[in-house]
Amino acid sequence: MSQHTQALTGFLADLNYAQLPEAVISRTEDLFLDWLGSALASQGAHPIPLFERYAAMMGPASGPAGVLVNGTTSSAYFAALVNGASSHLVEQDDLHNSSVLHPATVVFPAVLAGAQDLGKTGRELILAAVAGYEAGIRIGEFLGRSHYRTFHTTATVGTLAAAVGVGKLMDFNQEQFTNLLGSAGTQAAGLWEFLRDAADSKQLHTAKAAADGLLAAYLTAEGLSGARNILEGEQGMAAGMSSDANPACLSDGLGRRWALTETSFKFHASCRHTHPAADALLDLMQREHLRAEDIARVTTRVHQGAIDVLGRVLVPQSVHQAKFSMGTVLGLIAVYGKAGLPEFQQHALTDPRISEFRDKVHMVLDDEVDSAYPQRWLGRVEVTTVQGRTVHGRIDEPKGDPGNTLTRDELEDKFRRLLAFSGARNDEQASGLVELVWHLRHLDDLSMLTRTGSSS
Amino acid sequence: MSQHTQALTGFLADLNYAQLPEAVISRTEDLFLDWLGSALASQGAHPIPLFERYAAMMGPASGPAGVLVNGTTSSAYFAALVNGASSHLVEQDDLHNSSVLHPATVVFPAVLAGAQDLGKTGRELILAAVAGYEAGIRIGEFLGRSHYRTFHTTATVGTLAAAVGVGKLMDFNQEQFTNLLGSAGTQAAGLWEFLRDAADSKQLHTAKAAADGLLAAYLTAEGLSGARNILEGEQGMAAGMSSDANPACLSDGLGRRWALTETSFKFHASCRHTHPAADALLDLMQREHLRAEDIARVTTRVHQGAIDVLGRVLVPQSVHQAKFSMGTVLGLIAVYGKAGLPEFQQHALTDPRISEFRDKVHMVLDDEVDSAYPQRWLGRVEVTTVQGRTVHGRIDEPKGDPGNTLTRDELEDKFRRLLAFSGARNDEQASGLVELVWHLRHLDDLSMLTRTGSSS
Repeated sequence: MSQHTQALTGFLADLNYAQLPEAVISRTEDLFLDWLGSALASQGAHPIPLFERYAAMMGPASGPAGVLVNGTTSSAYFAALVNGASSHLVEQDDLHNSSVLHPATVVFPAVLAGAQDLGKTGRELILAAVAGYEAGIRIGEFLGRSHYRTFHTTATVGTLAAAVGVGKLMDFNQEQFTNLLGSAGTQAAGLWEFLRDAADSKQLHTAKAAADGLLAAYLTAEGLSGARNILEGEQGMAAGMSSDANPACLSDGLGRRWALTETSFKFHASCRHTHPAADALLDLMQREHLRAEDIARVTTRVHQGAIDVLGRVLVPQSVHQAKFSMGTVLGLIAVYGKAGLPEFQQHALTDPRISEFRDKVHMVLDDEVDSAYPQRWLGRVEVTTVQGRTVHGRIDEPKGDPGNTLTRDELEDKFRRLLAFSGARNDEQASGLVELVWHLRHLDDLSMLTRTGSSS
Repeated sequence: MSQHTQALTGFLADLNYAQLPEAVISRTEDLFLDWLGSALASQGAHPIPLFERYAAMMGPASGPAGVLVNGTTSSAYFAALVNGASSHLVEQDDLHNSSVLHPATVVFPAVLAGAQDLGKTGRELILAAVAGYEAGIRIGEFLGRSHYRTFHTTATVGTLAAAVGVGKLMDFNQEQFTNLLGSAGTQAAGLWEFLRDAADSKQLHTAKAAADGLLAAYLTAEGLSGARNILEGEQGMAAGMSSDANPACLSDGLGRRWALTETSFKFHASCRHTHPAADALLDLMQREHLRAEDIARVTTRVHQGAIDVLGRVLVPQSVHQAKFSMGTVLGLIAVYGKAGLPEFQQHALTDPRISEFRDKVHMVLDDEVDSAYPQRWLGRVEVTTVQGRTVHGRIDEPKGDPGNTLTRDELEDKFRRLLAFSGARNDEQASGLVELVWHLRHLDDLSMLTRTGSSS
């Protein structure tokens, strides 16, 4: 095992709450609220009820952990599974840029279910989440761009991130974290192939990453051993699933660089790969006073990862797939000025102006954008007007990125819009939840977070 | 999607009991008994109780499906999980050579748990198992040797084999089988890295393959969609996890070639990669009247896969790891004339004659053996005696292979020895189980198969 893996497991074992800067603690609360909203926003939407029925069939009738979308309880495993499925569906959860990992949707379902099961406090939940984020982000960076080309990093690396979070709840020592990474890493799975068919696997991926990570932690606590070098070993994750792995990423700035604070909140309700172009187009249209009908052609200059993920979606067949259609997203921006959940739900597939605009949009690989990626997600669009004029839009930090982040007011607003969208909670309940989350570090009883109406 | 995947899913949907040759039906009964013995033999052995405790913690207090090693019941998911963990531990379960897949340990836990849950008959169980074997073996062959180099095929492909079995129980049509492969394939995981540490992941792998496959089938039945081309697609299994995939394997001889009948029963209680050399050495020693102390050096000429899997185990640290030590296995053969469970348990780590012999054993890559593999597993050993004489041993079909298979009497005998080893069932109970399995095709109620003492 290299010094890098060793440094990582040592850091995870030693990490304690007193060590966390205030900015990390409050950002964890921000991220938790953002995650909670994302999960509740999917209530009732396909395929979430399938996971609810599966949990009811295979799990206990009730248990210590709460299922957000239906207010039932179950064992920690099934709560993590259903909450993991729920929180990625509306594509409003956070993203860490350079790892291309969505940490919240895998870390929070696992640590919340584990914390409720184990009777842990808000502080312990925060510490566990930080551990999951710090490890997951570094492992994502370690596996690199070649991994992301075929594997859905949030699924694969997510399994380890979730596992680490639950391991931290259980106060694992370094030896246990070593075994834990082994048992989580050897379960890591998730392929991008589903995307071109608009299949439901993204929800399966996040559900399983959260639940499998939790399973790895509980079995490690019982004494299950795992491969000691699952990340870097000759038959480990990098060997099997990456061609550009960089071990130094695993220990990068541990305890000094808080990767959790580098995460981006999603402003638009679409795949993050569309956001730089969406912001650049919005900015350009406002600056040049352009309307959708003024535009004849849009060329977005993007990184290769955007082409890999979005390039297959030509004519979206579902609302979910529309979030991976660059043309559809830019169409909503151009026609409606925003690409939120209601715009997707009501217009993405049905408004002829959107499909018309979609056909005007083209992606091309841009060297500058591509070399900045994944550290920075640059937005570059080139618009040709119907009058034949060519204008350029550019943003260097999309809305929601660390340098252009959302305030607590904006996060609250987003949270309320997400809950209103699905009707999962009424206004009063939403206020109660916001109140709880802004006091997360002081909560002794975490059961209220998942009990419907408990806070009203 | 290619014609090959399409042919496979079409075959799976159309497959019916009337189509199965008698040899396939009776061989499935043979394989089922062999699997049942393997699972029961691990009762009480680490790490199986960890999985039992996990199932008790996360699952319902009781349910329609039986857990073999402790006689409790649970939901189908947890029964598949614990039975999947149990049946690979003693390394006595079957193997299909050219796919390097151990089908029983992933297919039977899933289809038995599913069949008990769904109230299916013995005939339906047999049909489901055949579907799982036929699909799993072909998918293993499709992914090829490059996959097996890093990935534990029984874990990865096992997830799909288990899923197909349960899908057949549910009488899936072709469209459902397509979705099922997508949801199973995107969960496929399992790396060989654990082996060099003698870690417990092999049990985790088979447990999760069986349980995840079952999960995929239940969610598909509920309506979850999956990638339509998970095997061959540009971001599918072959793209991410193989460099020598051959799509033609997927449809090879469907309905004419019954791959299930090509499986090998294990005679020695060790990794199958050691068996050709073990049989060749045993044959040579008998022919030349050699005793262990007459031997100064053994060179086994092997295929690359044997070196990949066994090459890392120098001094075994556990009984389980000793099964992957070529020197230890040949030592037991030389000193005790056999390498069964009692020999491993009592002598593999403690008898100084075994460790002494181990150091005399060397593996070298052999071109003839390597090119025959994985279709044929040739055994070639070169022994130098203490007197300086060099003699050669060779076998072309290890004991248990289709052309050198075990009779029903030998299978019964093996079954009784496995049960006696762990004490999981007494003699009378063993006889009852044998009786049940030889009538598997006529059973209406499968609950008796897992109920302790029910048959006595």
